[in-house]
Amino acid sequence: MSAVLMSTETAFVARQSIEQVEEGTLLAPKFGPDGLLPVVTTDVVSGEVLMMSVMNETALLRTIETGEAHYWSRSRQTLWHKGATSGLVQKVVEIRIDDDQDAVWLRVEVAGGASCHVGYRSCFYRAVVTPPSSRPVALAFTETQKVFDPQRVYGDAPNPTQL
Amino acid sequence: MSAVLMSTETAFVARQSIEQVEEGTLLAPKFGPDGLLPVVTTDVVSGEVLMMSVMNETALLRTIETGEAHYWSRSRQTLWHKGATSGLVQKVVEIRIDDDQDAVWLRVEVAGGASCHVGYRSCFYRAVVTPPSSRPVALAFTETQKVFDPQRVYGDAPNPTQL
Repeated sequence: MSAVLMSTETAFVARQSIEQVEEGTLLAPKFGPDGLLPVVTTDVVSGEVLMMSVMNETALLRTIETGEAHYWSRSRQTLWHKGATSGLVQKVVEIRIDDDQDAVWLRVEVAGGASCHVGYRSCFYRAVVTPPSSRPVALAFTETQKVFDPQRVYGDAPNPTQL
Repeated sequence: MSAVLMSTETAFVARQSIEQVEEGTLLAPKFGPDGLLPVVTTDVVSGEVLMMSVMNETALLRTIETGEAHYWSRSRQTLWHKGATSGLVQKVVEIRIDDDQDAVWLRVEVAGGASCHVGYRSCFYRAVVTPPSSRPVALAFTETQKVFDPQRVYGDAPNPTQL
């Protein structure tokens, strides 16, 4: 873990050709017009998808340098060190980048075994019921028990889910 | 597989409360201002993340109804039946939705064993080299061999990677 964070200018290289971006061995990430790129986070042991989120440049660099997952919180409009409130820190085992370098895959170990603010292990705790012929489309729970009580962990903090 | 596709009005329910969205058993997806939601696709056998993409309402409904992955192609601005060109169709085994129903996780079987237009099994074929202290940040290949030759499969079709 580095105490002094380096600037994004030194960390990332410019995108100069498709071949360089797709087949090169230097990080040249492409952030969207909003300055963000999507991130998927999986549990390194179970392989389960835990959550999908976004990173800005600082969050990506902080994740690389500290080995703990940092995201950009759109609901709070701030850098988000995952687990800072709940204690459920995500320790990064591997950081993957995709072909055109505009998406990140984090493989993590989760302290406490849960990553979802609702209290479940994964944010993806429901599946579309198959065969999916009924309307409206029905969901079934894939996790039957919460790992923690969100009221106890987050108290009166605002719920990030928005209608 | 249904020949007649149903409208999104009958398929999805309105979002009326946080409790309904987070703990309910009916699909009430939230598409962004651009009409899209992010999707992560994993290989049901290896658990590996194959790709990240987006869906609009039609792509989501088409995926549910046909059992084959459909996305929205931002580079081509069209509904994208994955594998229509390459033959590498993704057969959907499970469709998960996240807590606030604004992200989808597809667990799929891939015909031909590859999902990346560059020719690799996964789009995430490179990882950040650890410890990541050198600058610029270096990448290492996690796949050493392509599954197919993109030139042979796609010919002169435009490369979706954009600088």
